[in-house]
Amino acid sequence: MEQNLENTVALLERTPAALDALLRDLPEKWTDNNEGENTWSVRAVLAHLIHADEEDWMPRAKMILSAGETQTFATFDRDGHLLYSKDKTLAQLLDEFARVRAKALGELLEMKLTAEDLERRGRHPSFGSVTLSELLATWAAHDMTHLHQISRIMAFQYREAVGPWARFLGVMQCAGHSAAA
Amino acid sequence: MEQNLENTVALLERTPAALDALLRDLPEKWTDNNEGENTWSVRAVLAHLIHADEEDWMPRAKMILSAGETQTFATFDRDGHLLYSKDKTLAQLLDEFARVRAKALGELLEMKLTAEDLERRGRHPSFGSVTLSELLATWAAHDMTHLHQISRIMAFQYREAVGPWARFLGVMQCAGHSAAA
Repeated sequence: MEQNLENTVALLERTPAALDALLRDLPEKWTDNNEGENTWSVRAVLAHLIHADEEDWMPRAKMILSAGETQTFATFDRDGHLLYSKDKTLAQLLDEFARVRAKALGELLEMKLTAEDLERRGRHPSFGSVTLSELLATWAAHDMTHLHQISRIMAFQYREAVGPWARFLGVMQCAGHSAAA
Repeated sequence: MEQNLENTVALLERTPAALDALLRDLPEKWTDNNEGENTWSVRAVLAHLIHADEEDWMPRAKMILSAGETQTFATFDRDGHLLYSKDKTLAQLLDEFARVRAKALGELLEMKLTAEDLERRGRHPSFGSVTLSELLATWAAHDMTHLHQISRIMAFQYREAVGPWARFLGVMQCAGHSAAA
């Protein structure tokens, strides 16, 4: 299906509550362990989602509207989430994600984007010309890639505990890891 | 980490609310489309989770305690969910999943399982001897494999809408699909 603002926002506005219901007060073994060296814990993913809402999606959307392709998006620092998770409990990160997401969606709605606006273009530092519509679709799909990652990180903690079932569980065979963009 | 009843239950009891927060009242385009021929929609996954709670996990746990390896688990029908989703709205399926999960966890807690009980064995129709502990760990990991699948099905709906970002989103490269077991 094509990007549609109503569908995109419907998904974006649900993610914080879904993660809250899944993660709040869960034993730390689920949320503070990762998938091995140089991989992220659930905590880190949550901090990354906050970071991306603050410094990636809406700043890029605003740049498309104000400058079009004459400016290139700032490169997004994939390690920038470390700053956001420092000294924060998981509960605080969940609260923070709900807050920044609501703020970002409020700003998005205030833009009163038209079908023409959605076809306006900006410049991505890696792959050049992109539309505002593609950026917004990616924002929603990015939530899904990280929900996908969170479920995989959590399943990974039981990779031995499940015994012979491991090879039948798709989540334990997943190699769909996101790349920096 | 090893299977631990407290950790397992903590995860199992959160899944229905997480799916509720993610999916209730979401536009049907997200929940009624699938990933192509012979794949499941989000609706179908939800019906499968209900079906598995009713006919797989707890019936197998009870059989381990009552009969050990002298009986073989009934084969689980991976198409059995069709019966559960027929004529039901997504909202009804969410309500139903919350209900059957709460009932199943109530029964699990009433078993007052000891460490010895968790090492008791049953017989799986495909791969033979398994412990109760492995069965319970798989129940939780099975929630995660289907949350993983749900996020992938939803991301798939925007595979074209995201334009050049598609190849950077791990969820769009995932080949970690579950097999029947």
